[in-house]
Amino acid sequence: MWDVVIVGAGLSGLTSASQLLGKDAQLKILVLEGKDRVGGRTVSLKMPAAHGDDLWDLGGQWVGSTQTHVMNLIQELGLEVYPQYAEGEKVHHMGTPEAKARTYTSSLPFSSPLVLLDTTVFLWKIERLCKTVSVEDPISTPNAVQYDSMTLHTYMEQHIWTKELKQNMGICSRTLFGMEPSQLSFLYFLMFASAAGGVLPLLGTGAGSAQEFRVKGGTQQLSEKLADQIGRENILLGSAVTAIEQCNNVVLVRTATQSFACKAVIVTCPPHLAAKIQYSPALPTEKDRLAQSMPVGHLIKFIVTYPTAFWREKGFSGEIVVHASAICPFSVTFDATSPSGNPALLGFIAGEQASDWGARTEEDRRDSIILSLQKYLGPEASLFIHYEEKDWAREEFSGGCPVNIMVPGMLSFYHPSLRKPCGRIFWAGTETATLWCGYLSGAVQSGQRAALEVLGCLAPNSLSQSDREVAGASQNHPAQCRTWAATPTPYRSSTLLALTTVTLGAALLLLRPQLSRDLIGRALPFVQKAGLKQ
Amino acid sequence: MWDVVIVGAGLSGLTSASQLLGKDAQLKILVLEGKDRVGGRTVSLKMPAAHGDDLWDLGGQWVGSTQTHVMNLIQELGLEVYPQYAEGEKVHHMGTPEAKARTYTSSLPFSSPLVLLDTTVFLWKIERLCKTVSVEDPISTPNAVQYDSMTLHTYMEQHIWTKELKQNMGICSRTLFGMEPSQLSFLYFLMFASAAGGVLPLLGTGAGSAQEFRVKGGTQQLSEKLADQIGRENILLGSAVTAIEQCNNVVLVRTATQSFACKAVIVTCPPHLAAKIQYSPALPTEKDRLAQSMPVGHLIKFIVTYPTAFWREKGFSGEIVVHASAICPFSVTFDATSPSGNPALLGFIAGEQASDWGARTEEDRRDSIILSLQKYLGPEASLFIHYEEKDWAREEFSGGCPVNIMVPGMLSFYHPSLRKPCGRIFWAGTETATLWCGYLSGAVQSGQRAALEVLGCLAPNSLSQSDREVAGASQNHPAQCRTWAATPTPYRSSTLLALTTVTLGAALLLLRPQLSRDLIGRALPFVQKAGLKQ
Repeated sequence: MWDVVIVGAGLSGLTSASQLLGKDAQLKILVLEGKDRVGGRTVSLKMPAAHGDDLWDLGGQWVGSTQTHVMNLIQELGLEVYPQYAEGEKVHHMGTPEAKARTYTSSLPFSSPLVLLDTTVFLWKIERLCKTVSVEDPISTPNAVQYDSMTLHTYMEQHIWTKELKQNMGICSRTLFGMEPSQLSFLYFLMFASAAGGVLPLLGTGAGSAQEFRVKGGTQQLSEKLADQIGRENILLGSAVTAIEQCNNVVLVRTATQSFACKAVIVTCPPHLAAKIQYSPALPTEKDRLAQSMPVGHLIKFIVTYPTAFWREKGFSGEIVVHASAICPFSVTFDATSPSGNPALLGFIAGEQASDWGARTEEDRRDSIILSLQKYLGPEASLFIHYEEKDWAREEFSGGCPVNIMVPGMLSFYHPSLRKPCGRIFWAGTETATLWCGYLSGAVQSGQRAALEVLGCLAPNSLSQSDREVAGASQNHPAQCRTWAATPTPYRSSTLLALTTVTLGAALLLLRPQLSRDLIGRALPFVQKAGLKQ
Repeated sequence: MWDVVIVGAGLSGLTSASQLLGKDAQLKILVLEGKDRVGGRTVSLKMPAAHGDDLWDLGGQWVGSTQTHVMNLIQELGLEVYPQYAEGEKVHHMGTPEAKARTYTSSLPFSSPLVLLDTTVFLWKIERLCKTVSVEDPISTPNAVQYDSMTLHTYMEQHIWTKELKQNMGICSRTLFGMEPSQLSFLYFLMFASAAGGVLPLLGTGAGSAQEFRVKGGTQQLSEKLADQIGRENILLGSAVTAIEQCNNVVLVRTATQSFACKAVIVTCPPHLAAKIQYSPALPTEKDRLAQSMPVGHLIKFIVTYPTAFWREKGFSGEIVVHASAICPFSVTFDATSPSGNPALLGFIAGEQASDWGARTEEDRRDSIILSLQKYLGPEASLFIHYEEKDWAREEFSGGCPVNIMVPGMLSFYHPSLRKPCGRIFWAGTETATLWCGYLSGAVQSGQRAALEVLGCLAPNSLSQSDREVAGASQNHPAQCRTWAATPTPYRSSTLLALTTVTLGAALLLLRPQLSRDLIGRALPFVQKAGLKQ
C-alpha cells in the first residue's frame, strides 16, 4: 500500500513527488513512467562538437526570469542559467522561396512601415485582450464564448491586413504550439499568452521572455536531480499505466503487468495520454470530453554543431525566421552554442511542416536544413560536425510537443474539469498550469499544486493557510461555469475607427519615410513595454 | 489463429463479418465487443405503453429511402420500415422562454419573411458549397483550407443576419452532432451534409430525408439478426480490446484477459475509443493525430409513452423545435408512436444542454421535460405512462452519440488517414463512411468497404472488379494530400451583391405581405429540390 502513486516521471510528476516528501518525509511515494528515462518532454543528449562531446537539449530548453517556479527550482537544485545569445542581425524570409531574405535587429521583424503598423496594432489588440483573460476561469473573460467559438486563424483574418504579419503569426503558432492557427481556439491562445504575461514575452529572447535563459548542463538535469532526491528505487521506468480503479478510498493503479494500491494518484502525463488510461468508475463526462479536445502539437527539433560560430563572426545572431516553403523545413533557428563554447545552431520543424517533413527520411531533412542554413548564413554552414534531431510525435509516451492545445468550443464547456480532482485522482502536467502553462515552469507549478491538493485530502492539518489556498483553488471552481444561456454575442470593437485612423497614418508614413523611421523607433519599445508590464 | 478479428459488434462490425462470410464461408471470423450486447449506438428497449409493453429505440432509429446501404440490408434481413409521422402543426419556440411559441406546417420554421429569406439564402449558399465538396478527398474542395480553418459558428456569424436563423442552426448542430456550432470545422459540416446529399435531407422527415422511416421492431434487430447469421459463438461480449500488435503478417489482438492471433483486424469502434487501444508498432503520426481531433457528440435521448396520441387529436405532429433555455431541456421532439399504435413522443437533449442537464438527476430532467411538453402540447402531456432516457455519454463503450465530429484544421492535415489501412489494421465505423456518414447507412457502407479491403489483402482473387475498386479506394489516397504551400486564401464571394439584392427584396416583401406569402410558397420547394436533386 502506497500513499501516493504519480503517473509520469516528467518535471511535473517529479516535482509533485519532491513536494510531497518535502512536506512529509514518511510518505510512501511511487512514480510510474512509461519511458525508459525520467524528464518527459526534456531530454539532454551528448553529441560530437568542436571541443569534444557536449550536451544539448532536444526537448524543452528555455527558462526566463519571470518563470519563478522553475527559476526557484533551478536555484534549489544548485543549477545555473546563462542568457540566450541574441546579438547581431536576424534573418527574416517571408513570401516565396524566391523572395529576398532581409535582416533586422529590432525585436520584431517587418519589411515595411505598413507591416510594422499592422503588427503594432494587432499586438496592441491582443495584449489588451490578454489582460482581460482569467487563466483560472477563462469563461469569465468578457466575450469568452465568442472568442472560444473561433480559431486563431479566424481572428487573424478579421484583424490583420498584411500578408506578412499573417505569415509571421503562422510561424509563431507553429513554433509555440506545434499547431497551425486554424487548429487553436482563439480564447485558448489568449489564455496561453496571458499565463505568460502576454504575447510579446512568448516571442522574445529579452528580459522576462520565454527564450531568455538556458540551463547549464541541460534541462533534463532538473528531473534527474529530483529523481535522486526522491530515490530511484521509488521510480519505476518502462511502466506505463493502463488503468486506474477507485473503490472505497483505495486507488488501484495498473500497468500491463503490475498493480499498485494507494490512497491517492496524481496523473501528470499529457491529456491525450491520460485519456488512454481506463478509469473505473469512468471519469465525469466533462473530463472525458476535455481530454478528447486537447490534441498535442507536432514539433521536430534539430541541433547542428559546428567547428566555429561562423554566423557570429559575420554579425548574425543565428536567429532565422522563415515562412513555410517546399525548400526550407524549419520555421525558426537560434544560436545554440554551449556554455563551454561549442558552437551550434538549433531549429524547429513545426506544425504542418512537421507533418510533411516528418514523413521523409532524416537525410532528406538534414540535407534541406543544411542547404537552407547555407543560403541564410553562408557556405560555412555546410561544414557541420554533427546533426541530431528528435521528432517528438514518434516518442510513444509523449506523442508530440511542446504542448496539448485546446480546440474551439471546448473551453466554454469543459475547462473547469481541467484541474478538478476526480475522487482521489489529481491532475498535474504543464497543460494544467495557470502561470507559464505549456512551459517547464508550468510543469513545476502544476506539480506543486497537485501535491498540495493531495495533502489537503490525505493530511489537511499538515498544510499552512497559504498551502491550503493553493490546494483549494481547483476544487472551488464550479463543475459547470457556463450555461446554455450564454450564447455567443457578436464581437464588437471600434474596428472601423481604428482601421480608418491607422490606414490614414500608414498612408502618411509611406509618403514620408523619415517620419516612419522615427515613429518605428518610438512604437517598438512602447509595444514591448505594454507586453512586459503585466 | 483467426482469419479476421473485428473490434466492435455494432452495425459496422457485424456488417463486415457478414460480408466476409458471404464472400467466403470458410473464413474464421471473431468479433470482440466491450459492451454486454450487440448493436453499438443502436439499442431497442421494451417499455410500458398504452396496450402493454412495446419496443422503442433509445439510439439511432431513422433510415431514409436514399440510404441505399441500410435499406438493402433491411430488405435482406426481412425487416420492414414505416414512415415517421409528421402530419399536423409543428411547434417552434425561439428566443427567451417568455417569447411566444408559434406553430407551422412548412418544412422549415420561420417567424417572418425576413427570417425566411435569410434561411433561403443561407441554405442556398450552403447547398451550393456542399456540391463542391469531395467527401472522399475533402481537401480537394475549392477553398478547403479556408473552410477548415473556421468553425461552423464563424461561418454562421459571417453569413446569417437574423438571430432566429442562428438559433435554428444551433438546434440543427446540437441535434445532428450533439455539438455546438462553435465545436465543428465548417469544412467537416459541409462534408457531412454532402455525404447525405445536402443540408435539407439532414433536417426533414420527407422523402429522401434522414428522418423519413423507422424500422418496425427497432434498429437493434439489424445487429441481432446479423449476429445470428455470423453465429453467436463467434462474438465475444464484454471483451474490450486493449492492444493490437502487428508482427510478421500476424496481428495479435488483446483484451484485458485474452489474446487472439489473426491475419487481419477491422477496427470499427468510434475514433476516440480506437485511440485508447495501444498499437504496436505505433500508428502513423497522422492517424494518431486525427483520432485526437475527433471528439464525440453528447446526446441524451428520451421516450415518453402515453395512453393516447393526444397531440395528434389536437392537430399537432408532435414535432417541437425549441431554442436552449433554462426551463426546457430538449431541442427537438418527434412523434414516436409505435407501429402497433402505442402512442409516444421522443426527444433529444443535445450538445451544451446535454452537458448541463446531464449533470442533474433523472427526475429533474423528466419533470422539466414533462412540464415543457405540457406547455407546448397541452395539459394531457402530464398523464404519461412511462419515461425512459439514455445518456450516451455515460455508456462506457460509446462515450457519446450520435457521431464523432472533426475539429477545425484537422481535415486539412490528417483526413487521408481516416480510412487508410495501417498494415493489417483496417478501419470501419460510420465516421469513415462516404455516404450518409454518421448514420446507420454509413455504418453499413463502411463495414462492407472494410471487408472488401481485407479480402483484397488476404485473398485478392476472390474479389470481382467492382469489389476491387471499392477496396482500393482508400489505399489510393496519398498519405499527405496537402502541402504547406496551400496556405488559406481569404473567402471570396459575391456577398455584397447578394446582400444588397436580398435586403432590397426583404424590404419589398415586408411592405407587401401578400407578395411575400406567394414567394415563400415558391421558394421553399425550390430550396428543397436544390437540396434533394444531388
